Amino acid sequence: MTRRVHNFGAGPAALPLPVLEQIRDELLDFRGSGMSILESSHRSAPYGEVQEGAKRALAELLGIGLGAGSSHEILFMGGGARTQFGLVPMSFLPAGGHAEYFVTGRWAEMAAAEGAKRGDARIAWSSAETGHDRVPTAEELAALEIEPGTAYVHYTSNNTVAGTQMLTPPPANRLGGVPLVADMSSDIVSRPIDAQRFALIYAGAQKNLGPAGVTVVIVRRDMLERCPADLPDTLHYGRMASKDSLLNTPPVFAIYTVALVARWLLDQGGVEAAGARNEAKAALLYDAIDSSDGFYRGHARPDSRSRMNVTFRLPDEELEARFVAEAAERDMVGIKGHRSVGGIRVSLYNAIERASVERLVELMEDFRRQRRS
Amino acid sequence: MTRRVHNFGAGPAALPLPVLEQIRDELLDFRGSGMSILESSHRSAPYGEVQEGAKRALAELLGIGLGAGSSHEILFMGGGARTQFGLVPMSFLPAGGHAEYFVTGRWAEMAAAEGAKRGDARIAWSSAETGHDRVPTAEELAALEIEPGTAYVHYTSNNTVAGTQMLTPPPANRLGGVPLVADMSSDIVSRPIDAQRFALIYAGAQKNLGPAGVTVVIVRRDMLERCPADLPDTLHYGRMASKDSLLNTPPVFAIYTVALVARWLLDQGGVEAAGARNEAKAALLYDAIDSSDGFYRGHARPDSRSRMNVTFRLPDEELEARFVAEAAERDMVGIKGHRSVGGIRVSLYNAIERASVERLVELMEDFRRQRRS
Repeated sequence: MTRRVHNFGAGPAALPLPVLEQIRDELLDFRGSGMSILESSHRSAPYGEVQEGAKRALAELLGIGLGAGSSHEILFMGGGARTQFGLVPMSFLPAGGHAEYFVTGRWAEMAAAEGAKRGDARIAWSSAETGHDRVPTAEELAALEIEPGTAYVHYTSNNTVAGTQMLTPPPANRLGGVPLVADMSSDIVSRPIDAQRFALIYAGAQKNLGPAGVTVVIVRRDMLERCPADLPDTLHYGRMASKDSLLNTPPVFAIYTVALVARWLLDQGGVEAAGARNEAKAALLYDAIDSSDGFYRGHARPDSRSRMNVTFRLPDEELEARFVAEAAERDMVGIKGHRSVGGIRVSLYNAIERASVERLVELMEDFRRQRRS
Repeated sequence: MTRRVHNFGAGPAALPLPVLEQIRDELLDFRGSGMSILESSHRSAPYGEVQEGAKRALAELLGIGLGAGSSHEILFMGGGARTQFGLVPMSFLPAGGHAEYFVTGRWAEMAAAEGAKRGDARIAWSSAETGHDRVPTAEELAALEIEPGTAYVHYTSNNTVAGTQMLTPPPANRLGGVPLVADMSSDIVSRPIDAQRFALIYAGAQKNLGPAGVTVVIVRRDMLERCPADLPDTLHYGRMASKDSLLNTPPVFAIYTVALVARWLLDQGGVEAAGARNEAKAALLYDAIDSSDGFYRGHARPDSRSRMNVTFRLPDEELEARFVAEAAERDMVGIKGHRSVGGIRVSLYNAIERASVERLVELMEDFRRQRRS
């Protein structure tokens, strides 16, 4: 019997067991080809079907079309979301122009820093002063002032380190026609979104979509021609789109896994059902925090809480270490908070089952009772 | 019984069967962790050992040291070798400077084209006029003139499309101190090299080293500080080196597979033994070509022949299609030539067994005999 733990890690993160079993079962002979998917040419028919299947499933999950008449293109790129931090300004921030960044967390800060390397990257909003414990309120978003001619507005939909989530993008009526760019690495396909609002979405796959090693990019067609001609081909969204991400060898195995995960998610009812499940899972944990008489203290302000990463502290660091150890004794791992925030972080991506969360809540109650008695 | 074909594909290419079996066997529970390597954090101890193991094995195969006192750093990057085509000039070609490129094939051409986007990329040598059927002779290399102050000299050690290989780098006495950069995507660790000669070596893993999805970069320490500060962090060799390729989530699974393949190669006797095996495998095929009374015609000139990719034509395209079909009937696949050259291409990377080559030679003899009788 294979031992499997409850993996609440922030990413690379848990994958659905049926997906892992399928990968294992067809690892030596990919669908009758007599070779592994790891050995399959990216120009082969079997791989072509894999990549098309991944795109089809993602388009369905994101509610966008596919093909020449569609509004957006789906690309598969290497280098992680952090490479996109650099590509966005290299592609869309012209000399003398400026962009606006929402600085809601550690990764958002890095995205803005890459923008600042290429030009005028302004801070539209920041939670740095309060340790990124919140995202903008509806009122703050409604009062947003974005200059016409701004190259783009960039935000991070979910902040894995602090455990906050911006469930609503900056409103269209405040943006005018300014292109909206989002890093959705840690909440893509975790709930429905209106993809039509976005000029560019990018996401490392390793949280909700698959393994580390591929970044999914959803780019609106009109953005493709804006990329400067002197960018390297593989960093040029337009040229990548024109070759269906096959300018050179793509990360075949990672895309294959994304195809399986996306198909699994559709079989589970798609993003609507996933959104409801994820909201319910998060509510279980936040309820446990809120009903603990202050024993567990959430890092994020209640109105900014993430459904993907739940961050909290215990009365002291010794108790936190003890909590992590007791969780491990019960086969629950990956809950140590990010070193910059400390405490506990529980990640609740699509593949995390409700039963795992219930098990953790049980530990939280037991642990608190023992310390209080 | 799992069906396994003889996969002579040019890349992604065949992997050693014991490596695939190990991946399969530990896919659900990675070494007692209770999770898949696909789900393992890149900050976890088990993954740390994987990456260290990959670096250690690669360093041994390349004959370089590891750690602070070593001459070179080993990096793992995304985006494929083609992204390196762009990064090399972005990193090392200063404004007003110039670089020199050996244009020995299709990919070498693309590398030079990326150089030309950033500045003065000169063609030190080219085989374009004769369909890239050869690499420079020893005499041509000995007569090479490289201006002092050249930013770097770039060459492609093996040309997969045409099937030629530059077994000897441009000689040190012709380079002066000019940094030597090589794309070794299709022959890295296929034979011993003198890595000390190189300022930078890069290689997509998907031929001799593992699956698609990771590029191995071996960079001499003094090059690290030359990278411009305004490059995105993940495209900056120096910053990547300072964080041991862990600035962000690396392609965990691809690096894990590289670690297994590199270890397997060491267990098979390392690069010396691999070099001898690869030379012998190639000799079998070239002998079959040369003893065919012109039925099979090699594309590369004999003095430029690659030990990795053997390219040849048959009397006409109909026979070529028939040959590919008969090979498939005997479970040999991946031998259709690149669309730009046509004919047959047989790739003989490290994981290809001699028995597979013998089987192909048998087909070549049978096929020719049937057509001649």
